[in-house]
Amino acid sequence: MKNDPRWKTALYTTETYNEEGLEGHAFVPEGLNLQTSSPMNDHPGTNPEQLLGMSLSTCLVATMQAVEHEHQLEHHAKVRTKIAYIGERAHYEFLVHAQICVPGVDLTTAAKLVAEVEKRCCVSQLLSGSPNYSIEAVEPWY
Amino acid sequence: MKNDPRWKTALYTTETYNEEGLEGHAFVPEGLNLQTSSPMNDHPGTNPEQLLGMSLSTCLVATMQAVEHEHQLEHHAKVRTKIAYIGERAHYEFLVHAQICVPGVDLTTAAKLVAEVEKRCCVSQLLSGSPNYSIEAVEPWY
Repeated sequence: MKNDPRWKTALYTTETYNEEGLEGHAFVPEGLNLQTSSPMNDHPGTNPEQLLGMSLSTCLVATMQAVEHEHQLEHHAKVRTKIAYIGERAHYEFLVHAQICVPGVDLTTAAKLVAEVEKRCCVSQLLSGSPNYSIEAVEPWY
Repeated sequence: MKNDPRWKTALYTTETYNEEGLEGHAFVPEGLNLQTSSPMNDHPGTNPEQLLGMSLSTCLVATMQAVEHEHQLEHHAKVRTKIAYIGERAHYEFLVHAQICVPGVDLTTAAKLVAEVEKRCCVSQLLSGSPNYSIEAVEPWY
């Protein structure tokens, strides 16, 4: 992967770090610096679950924007991602479930758009090999 | 997945949203609210690439903490994740490459710890089905 020639023709690259630990900071050099903490205590800070959910939600809504545009629809889609931390000592997993609503469009049509987005969204592609990832079209939540 | 019984016994669950678009906000209800923007312009804001990288970096460093502890090592590991956005119209992908350094430990030993972490880190597990994800132990970067 390190020698994958596709890195050289990338449209954009970024680097992120955590040099401390779960109780630490996730940061982008000369960019965002976020306090992190375990989801199992009440310390301030975000965590891997929330960061992954925000990444997926944003990538899905961005891809929906493109797909709505291609279908001559105004952009109204909204994305919610639920993440669970499950397991026990030395074997933990995340469950990831994304929900997309498309106000103004019936649920059958929304499901077709979501099926297209599931394949095209870059984060969705990365997760698609996992049985713990799922996505569905839902009725608008408001 | 919606009906997966494992959701009911989760140790922790969270919800994240983006209800606007790539130029919008990713947020956790009553939690973090981050401005997002396209990586292809200079608008302020983070993006799916950085959020995914920060999630993976934090999850990997947290898992390294546990693994170092199990091996009676002090925690010194640091994680850097590089993300690339590649492709062209209607087919885009992310490349994800994580690097872990373990100051005070030789590279062969570090590589063994990283191999263990690769399988145990929850975010790494989710990405492990993708040929676009890789991880390696590297010499300390400082």
